[in-house]
Order: sequence, then structure tokens, then C-alpha cells
Amino acid sequence: MSIGDEKDTIAGIATAQGEGGISIVRVSGPAALAIADSVFACHSPPPSRRDGGTFVHGQVTAGDNPPAGGPGATVVDEAVLLIFRAPRSYTREDVVEIQGHGGVVSAQRVLRRVLDAGARLAEPGEFTKRAFINGRIDLTQAEAVLDLIRAGSDRAAAAAIEQLGGALTSWVTTTYDDLLSLVGGLEVGLDFPDDEMPPLLIEESCRMADAVGRQLDRLLGTWDEGHVVRDGVLTVISGKPNVGKSTLFNALLGTDRAIVADHPGTTRDTLEERLIIDGILLRLVDTAGLRDTDCVIEHQGVLRAKQQMQKADLHIHILDASQPLDRTDRESLSLMPPDRTIVVLNKVDLGVTIEPSSIAEYPVISACFLKPGAVDNLKTTLASRIARYSGGPARVTISERHRQAILAASVDTREAMSLLAHGREEAIAPAVSLLRSAAEELAMITGRVYHDDLLDRVFSRFCIGK
Amino acid sequence: MSIGDEKDTIAGIATAQGEGGISIVRVSGPAALAIADSVFACHSPPPSRRDGGTFVHGQVTAGDNPPAGGPGATVVDEAVLLIFRAPRSYTREDVVEIQGHGGVVSAQRVLRRVLDAGARLAEPGEFTKRAFINGRIDLTQAEAVLDLIRAGSDRAAAAAIEQLGGALTSWVTTTYDDLLSLVGGLEVGLDFPDDEMPPLLIEESCRMADAVGRQLDRLLGTWDEGHVVRDGVLTVISGKPNVGKSTLFNALLGTDRAIVADHPGTTRDTLEERLIIDGILLRLVDTAGLRDTDCVIEHQGVLRAKQQMQKADLHIHILDASQPLDRTDRESLSLMPPDRTIVVLNKVDLGVTIEPSSIAEYPVISACFLKPGAVDNLKTTLASRIARYSGGPARVTISERHRQAILAASVDTREAMSLLAHGREEAIAPAVSLLRSAAEELAMITGRVYHDDLLDRVFSRFCIGK
Repeated sequence: MSIGDEKDTIAGIATAQGEGGISIVRVSGPAALAIADSVFACHSPPPSRRDGGTFVHGQVTAGDNPPAGGPGATVVDEAVLLIFRAPRSYTREDVVEIQGHGGVVSAQRVLRRVLDAGARLAEPGEFTKRAFINGRIDLTQAEAVLDLIRAGSDRAAAAAIEQLGGALTSWVTTTYDDLLSLVGGLEVGLDFPDDEMPPLLIEESCRMADAVGRQLDRLLGTWDEGHVVRDGVLTVISGKPNVGKSTLFNALLGTDRAIVADHPGTTRDTLEERLIIDGILLRLVDTAGLRDTDCVIEHQGVLRAKQQMQKADLHIHILDASQPLDRTDRESLSLMPPDRTIVVLNKVDLGVTIEPSSIAEYPVISACFLKPGAVDNLKTTLASRIARYSGGPARVTISERHRQAILAASVDTREAMSLLAHGREEAIAPAVSLLRSAAEELAMITGRVYHDDLLDRVFSRFCIGK
Repeated sequence: MSIGDEKDTIAGIATAQGEGGISIVRVSGPAALAIADSVFACHSPPPSRRDGGTFVHGQVTAGDNPPAGGPGATVVDEAVLLIFRAPRSYTREDVVEIQGHGGVVSAQRVLRRVLDAGARLAEPGEFTKRAFINGRIDLTQAEAVLDLIRAGSDRAAAAAIEQLGGALTSWVTTTYDDLLSLVGGLEVGLDFPDDEMPPLLIEESCRMADAVGRQLDRLLGTWDEGHVVRDGVLTVISGKPNVGKSTLFNALLGTDRAIVADHPGTTRDTLEERLIIDGILLRLVDTAGLRDTDCVIEHQGVLRAKQQMQKADLHIHILDASQPLDRTDRESLSLMPPDRTIVVLNKVDLGVTIEPSSIAEYPVISACFLKPGAVDNLKTTLASRIARYSGGPARVTISERHRQAILAASVDTREAMSLLAHGREEAIAPAVSLLRSAAEELAMITGRVYHDDLLDRVFSRFCIGK
């Protein structure tokens, strides 16, 4: 059955996989209550004759005889069953949730029982997709659900809640409405003969189009913050072999995550760990030391290090203070924007021979990692570098998908504006067409307009059971 | 506040940590409903004035002003709140469960809000401990909850459900009752003067004690099965460097988990992955090749390999068929019981020079791992080796804690028996004392008798939130 068919009943494990006290199997669709009756034994009345908004304790029983609930029926799990009646449910369909004991295998046994009773395994995000198709939430809210599930920091969760509450929707809808009233005004002009055209119509429209363009730009400007808030600040520690990258990595994390050894080239794979500073998530990456090497495995490591450096939001580049800057260092630094880089001079206890002028563009921290508290200065500098993401209340921010749509809308709006600015009434028809297309781009952000590819792109990123 | 204080209200995240559609924060204790009122905004009436067995949709709001639920209150999460009124709850106390959006940070934000409102963070297993202390379940059932959460296979989950249903409790209680009636009969004898002692009393008691001893032995005999069902079959792949251990490991898993390279000593750390064959969990371990070495890192690997081999339930020992058996091989094999070992001859395509007599005790599989389907024979042999654990319905099995208690009860019972067999009425008093102590050991299995250390030992293995 295709993911587009909303007539069948779907089921999935809605809680995270792993050890936990409780797991939930969620079932949604017209047969949800009938399936509950056949897999779940409880004191009378059976689930299908109970009210929505209530739950009951009972047992998930196996499909073999004796009949479920009868003496000797095989128990799959003890559970609590929640009844949601359409439209008062997550999907606006009939829904039952079976809260069983936590644990991967235990939840799978309950799911299997529900599938045997006639449900179909849900596709990733299919519950939320039904909530969207049945009009309970729009696309930005569906995406906010995913952002909230994935939130790696307080700041990210707060931003997702804002979006779930409709903040981005309201922003986009306002701009969409502005575009439509602009189109409406221009279409009035199309009905007039040339010499009876209302004075100032084109001039006024230009002004409005410009205002819309600036609104779109403001929203585009939130992408950087939105990206960092959602995905975390990719912070890559780089430097030549044996300058102390893994030591710093461990010190920042406060653990012994990376193997540290005295000989160069100890780290081969890139290691990534998460670290939260002032409510902002840092994805801290330790890399192999940068040098030319004949060792195949080490060479692989250096390649991976360079890939990470290209994607970095923030660089921590470590130099050995007792050595002058060489070609490798200069090459590395040339790729690092000063406003996104912190240079760390390690081993300052061995004397500083590096020329200060060669690294004058960068904020520089001097340290000897072997001393206690040596990374405190660095932590302070890190905190100030990311402070712009952490301050104040959660604001509306956009994701990459939103950015693409807004960018297209912005291009169309500017083009319409320049047509109107140059031309006269013969420019109105193509401008209207461009502004309509801009409005349609915005409509795809909220899902007011959608096509299957768009839904697939949004919902395929979800986990099954959501 | 100590873990023993049951007057306060506790809270914890009850679902597994990770990405999931739903997470649950559970709150239990006298203030659960008052806390729900202060953190949760929903249409009237508030949670504390709602019936048990119902749930309501609403919002977890931040503690700042404006007041929760008022316009402009900061939303922490949208959620569904379940109300369980004492004693109809997991703990037999008032309980509320807040079902919010899944995700680690999102659940923690809700938990923090509940803690700010006056709940205390629950200790590991504290909800289940309260269920035990309040008489809803006994200790074997509490342990079954943990077994179910941790179950790594269908067979393990089924065994845990049996135990949760009271199968082990009923077995232990029967034997406990037998011991007490034995004690009762003997105590009657104590009241009689020597010459009026009922005939056959001692003889009859000996017979009963023997029956109890045999019951205990039968239960002890389930430990091996219980251990394997709970923890999985620790299956260790061993052999000299470069005989193909990692290749076999990957082939059994059907993945590229271990790095495979042509030079000896590629694997250093022991790698462990889970594999299910016929419903039974195998914990498959790949180890460093066994040889004397000067390399510190490799030497560490060999030590770890040997530690794993000592703990193995099942050995897969790989030999290079083209090389004669040497000292290292002989030493390794001498430590492997033939009924728990499978010898694999690899590289048979290079010719077989190994003497068949030297490995005649073991089941031997010949293979060339580089050929497709080469591990099918081995999988069949593995399946037959573990078949005894996978057949038939789940039976009562015991854990290590149960084994210790039953062993002690068994020793006491046998000793009482031998006292009674040799002596006359002067043996009755010490025999009664031994049999009472045996009964007490059994009572500790179900928790009819318990002390704080015992509870700590059982519940500290739980996750927080269960």
C-alpha cells in the first residue's frame, strides 16, 4: 500500500529505541479500536466501547487460542491502553496507544502483535503526515516536531516550540497575504485602458514589492542562526601531529574519549562528541594531525580531517608555540576565516618562537594543556564566539528548505519590481505572474500548496512511529 | 532525602533516551496532582479535579509569569497528561504521566519544570521499588520488569513475562510453605517428652526435607538456561593473528563491523555485537590474535582476548588448516571444553596439513571464508549448539541472585536432613533452626523478607524513570 493511502490503519513504536521504563506502540486509522479489541484484554467494556480521553490497564495477549483474555491466554505484555477518538487525536483519526514495558524486544513483540491483527507498519513520519493532511498542523509545524525530537540544546528546543506554536507560519502567511493583495491591486490595473489607469498604481505597487522583498531578506537573515541552533556549531580541532589536539578534545569534554599517546599520528578516525556551552550545542570534532604521510591509514585520516575543516562553523587550530610557522600551518590558516577561528598556542612552557605577526588576525589563546585549568581561557573565548546564538528568547528562524523557498520568492519579487519600475502597463501582466509564483513558493513553506515530492522530502527525515 | 523515604514525590523520564516520537515524564507521590496543576495548562477542570483513568491534552508551561496557561505563558512542550489515582497506579501512589514530544532535550526540559515545581529526581528503579514496598508486586516481579526492559531476544522477553506473571513466585512460595510445614511438624515433636514422641516424626521429616532439597536442585538446574536467556550466549571468536577472525565476525553479522586487513594484528580492541539465531541472543566477540608480542598496544589486545575467552559460554576457535598445530594453539584449545567449542579450519583451499587426531574431540567446520556462503555450515552448527535454550515455551528460570539464595537454602536443608538422619530428638532444635534459615533465604527471593542492602542491590540496576 502506498504512503499516500490514508484509508488503512498504521502502527509503529513511538518511543525511542533503547532501555526505558515505558515504550509506546501507536495505532492510527479506522480499524484502530477494532485492533485494540482483538489484541488487548481488559475488564469490561472492551476498548472500542470506551470513551476517548480515557485509558485502561490490561494485557496484550498473543493471537493463539485460548481467546485473548481467557484463562491461559499467552501474555505478550502488561500494558495501559489510551483511547483517542477522531478528531481529538494526533492524526485526527481514531488512535490507540499501547504503553508497555520499555525495552527494544518487548516493544517489538507488542508491535508485531498489532501488525498481525491487521495494522500496517507506518512509514517514517506517517503519523505526522496524516496530522498535516487532515489539517491539524501545517508543514512548518510538522518540521518543528522533528526539530524538537532532534533538539540537541535548550535553545534548539525553545526555537522548535516557537515554530510548533505557529510563529514561522504567521510570519510567512503575513508576507503571503501582502503578495496576494499586491497581485490583486495590479490585476485591477489590467482591466483599465491605458489612459484610464489609476494614477500611482505602479508606483505604489513598486513600493509594496520592495517592502515584501525586505521582509523576505530579514527572514533569510535568520538562516545562519537557525542552522546553528538546529544542528549545533561544528567545531573542528585541527593542527599538525602531536600538538595536543586529542588532549584538548578530552579536556573540553572532561573525559578520556580519545586515546592520547606521545607519538604523532595516534588519532586516525575523526571523533565527534557533543558539548553544550551556554545552552548552545557544539559538535566538537578531533581530527588526525595534518602532515604528508606514506601510511595509508594515516593518509585517510588526514583526508577526513580536511573534509571536516571545510564544513566547520568554528575552527580551533592548535600550533606548537616552540616551533616557527611552516608551510603546512600557513596553508591551514589560509582556509580559516578569522571571525570563525580561535588559534591556540600550546606548549608555551617550552618557549615561544612563533612570530606574533603571522597570526595577528586571529584571537590567540596561550596554554599548556598539561596544567590543570589550562582550557578555562579557551572555554571563555568559545562562549563569547557563540554568544550571538544563545542570547534572548527564541526567535523565528528558518531551515534550509525554507531558505530555498524564500530565496526563490525573493528573486521573483525583485524581478517583478524591476519590471514595474522600468515599464508601464505592459509590464503588469508578467509582474503579476512573477508575484504569483513568489506567493506559491511561500505557500509551499507552510504546505498550503504541496506536491508529493515535497511531502516525501519533509517526512522521510522522521523516525517511524512519529 | 534518602531513597527509603516514601513520603516525597519523585519524577523521572520513563522512556528510553534518544530520538522518538513521544517521551514520558512520570511523577509519583502525594504531590503529583498538585505539581500537575502548577506545570500543566489545559481546559477546565485542572488535573487535580479530573478522574483517574483519564487523560487530557494541554501544554507544559514555564514557571515564569504570566501565570501558566494565561496568554503569553512560555510553552515548554505540548503534551498529553495521564492521571492515575492511588492505589490504581504503577506505584499505588498518585501518579501523573506527561507525554511530550520525543527527544532527549525536550524530555529534560519537561522534567526540569516538574522538578522546579517541587518533585525530587527519582533514584534508579525507585518507581518499581515503591510498587514493591506498597505491595503491588514482589521482588521477582520487580526483577522481571528489568529483565523485560533489557530483553535482547524474544525468548528472554517471554521468560520475563512468565516471571512477571508470578511463575517463579509461585514456585518459591510452594517450597517456602513446604519448609514451614516441615518446621511446624518438628516443633510439635519438641513439645513431647522423649518417650512420647510421635512415631515416624523424624523419619517423615527426613523424607520431606529430601523432597524440598530435590525441589531446590531442580530450580538450581535452570540457572544455566536463565543466564543464557537473560544475558545471551557469550560467543568468543579466537585464534592466532591473521587466521580470519574479523572476516568471520563480519560474515556472521552480515556487515563490515570490524576493519579487516591483510596484515596480522589489525584488531586490537575486542569488538562485541549482538546476533540472534533462532530467537536466542548471541553476544559475538571478535578478539586480537593470540601471540607473543613486544607491541604494547597489541599485548593489551591479547590480554583482553584471554579475559573474554575465560568468560565465554561458547568458543569459536579458528585454525589455519595449512599450518600444523603449534604450542599457542594447543594451549588455547586446552582451555576450551569440547561441548562448548566449535573449531573452524580456515583456508582449506591452501591444503590441509593439520592432523585430524589433534582436534578429534571437537566439532570441526572446514571453510574458506573468502568464498560466498562459507559461513552457512557454521551457522547451522551454532544453531544446534544453542538449540537447547530455544525450544518450547518459556519456563521458570533463575538469576544469579536467586541462585545464591537457593544454594544457601539447599545447604541448610541438606544439613538439617543429615542431623535428623543421625540424631534423635536432640537433633530437632538445630534442624528447625537450619530449616527456618532455609525458609528465610527463600523469602528473600520474593522479598517477603528483605533488608536495605538487598533492595539497593536489586533496584540500583534499574534505569531512572522505572
